[in-house]
Amino acid sequence: LSDLKLCILGNGSAVPTSYSNPSSQILSYKGTQFLFDCGEGTQMQMIKYKIKHRKLDNIFISHLHGDHFYGLIGLISTFHLFGRDKKLTIYAPQDLEDLINYQLNISNTNLRFDLEFVHLEKMTDKILCDGEDFEIKSFPLKHSVPCWGFVFRQKPTARRIKKDFVLQKELNPKQITDIKNGADFTDEKGVFFSNSEITKPPKPALSYAYCSDTVYYEPVVENIKGVTLLYHEATFDNQMLDVAVEKLHSTAQQAAEIAKKAAVSKLLLGHFSARFSDLRVLEQEAQSVFPNSYVSREGETYEIKNPKQQTQ
Amino acid sequence: LSDLKLCILGNGSAVPTSYSNPSSQILSYKGTQFLFDCGEGTQMQMIKYKIKHRKLDNIFISHLHGDHFYGLIGLISTFHLFGRDKKLTIYAPQDLEDLINYQLNISNTNLRFDLEFVHLEKMTDKILCDGEDFEIKSFPLKHSVPCWGFVFRQKPTARRIKKDFVLQKELNPKQITDIKNGADFTDEKGVFFSNSEITKPPKPALSYAYCSDTVYYEPVVENIKGVTLLYHEATFDNQMLDVAVEKLHSTAQQAAEIAKKAAVSKLLLGHFSARFSDLRVLEQEAQSVFPNSYVSREGETYEIKNPKQQTQ
Repeated sequence: LSDLKLCILGNGSAVPTSYSNPSSQILSYKGTQFLFDCGEGTQMQMIKYKIKHRKLDNIFISHLHGDHFYGLIGLISTFHLFGRDKKLTIYAPQDLEDLINYQLNISNTNLRFDLEFVHLEKMTDKILCDGEDFEIKSFPLKHSVPCWGFVFRQKPTARRIKKDFVLQKELNPKQITDIKNGADFTDEKGVFFSNSEITKPPKPALSYAYCSDTVYYEPVVENIKGVTLLYHEATFDNQMLDVAVEKLHSTAQQAAEIAKKAAVSKLLLGHFSARFSDLRVLEQEAQSVFPNSYVSREGETYEIKNPKQQTQ
Repeated sequence: LSDLKLCILGNGSAVPTSYSNPSSQILSYKGTQFLFDCGEGTQMQMIKYKIKHRKLDNIFISHLHGDHFYGLIGLISTFHLFGRDKKLTIYAPQDLEDLINYQLNISNTNLRFDLEFVHLEKMTDKILCDGEDFEIKSFPLKHSVPCWGFVFRQKPTARRIKKDFVLQKELNPKQITDIKNGADFTDEKGVFFSNSEITKPPKPALSYAYCSDTVYYEPVVENIKGVTLLYHEATFDNQMLDVAVEKLHSTAQQAAEIAKKAAVSKLLLGHFSARFSDLRVLEQEAQSVFPNSYVSREGETYEIKNPKQQTQ
């Protein structure tokens, strides 16, 4: 199992249907949870798919269309009623802070926990979450209102010493640390071993990018280069390219073109128009450009793995 | 089947659970729909329980606690996306108008239909909806924020002529109308029939009252006197009376006492605390005071009938 997992709580666009809910997904990294978008009913979807929220301290809202944030005030209220006392940080367009405060005021709610807002407008090229071994950044998408994508990247780790060598030379902890940090090694008989000879490259870093609502927009490519998994909106199929352009959404083919240009490992499609009750047409369209493309499925948890280990 | 029906979309309080959704219910009268409260996920519940909204033009929000209105902005947005062009009227505390307008503004939404707000603060003793043969009024409840109940009443109808008499005397339309309006009748042989002799009383009027969130509050009684069906909150059982009083909610026993004092025909309990996964304790507690008490069930449609015809 991978350290990095994605659970889809909702992947529909705009209007809910009997088979889809608005945008919302949970990324888990070694148990820490990140919520990307929070459409109406997100807290119910979390209950349905047994997502606890003890380790959820960071919520990212891509833009202020209702299907991406109408569930946030309900989730915050529930945290409050459950007696949360840890800080919660919301990364979102600036207007959301006023709106949430207004909503809390009219219901006379004084939150028992700190609610911090980070305004995405001010975070260009800055790190949103700087973890010990990961970081999360935002980047601009192009939609009818200001809109941001998010990218999670594991930080590069040290090279790994070959196990046989550790045993054969009976290395002590200091020697191991030095070699991991790039040192060469000379044994007691004076034999020299170069670092590259006795180590393997670090595990490839895991990464994930979320592109919620956007027209086909090539500047995205440099921000999501080589990610392990890309979730990209595919509201329409290519027969509806005109509508996609007009409404500043993408087709499945365009999502796949972005995936290909960015050389990602795997593409998950989402934000489907309610008119597609059968999503295979979108999947096939994307696969014709980028074979490792799939339609995301609500309630499914995707292990985010590097291709070699990838089983799905 | 009755002309008046109630469908429960949600009857939980505050925090949603795997088995309950926040407050929301649809009253239908001869096909016209009225929505009472609109907690988060109401539009999803309408889809789940196959409630169309073509005939929904009036929404009533009892108070501004989130579990009673967080679903409203999503429902309005969906109406907009579906191309609604009919006026929608919202009866609610005044602050809700600003909040909804704020939400529409930040997502750049210009509604294609008229959205009218009627502020409950200004409607004391006034009729909210004055239909041809029904009316809906609000009345004060007592809760931690200003809160209103709603009562639907069919207007009294004319007396009904006994069918046999119409046939026997070969009455013409004018004679029928006169008798319905209270006239006596003298036949061609000069025989006199008093109105009460040849007519039956009008069908008893149907009525329904919704008391969402309130502490035990006797002034409610005069407003809901004799209704066919009363939905009254019963957040707690009587063992938690202290908590009920502190939080300005009612117990099942108190709901039943109100039902008894108001001489209603039937009581439905709702707004259950999430701690009650088995609701029979609440039902039994209410029945010990007012036998015709039942816990409401999500997704169920209740025919609102006068006792004689009542089958359920």
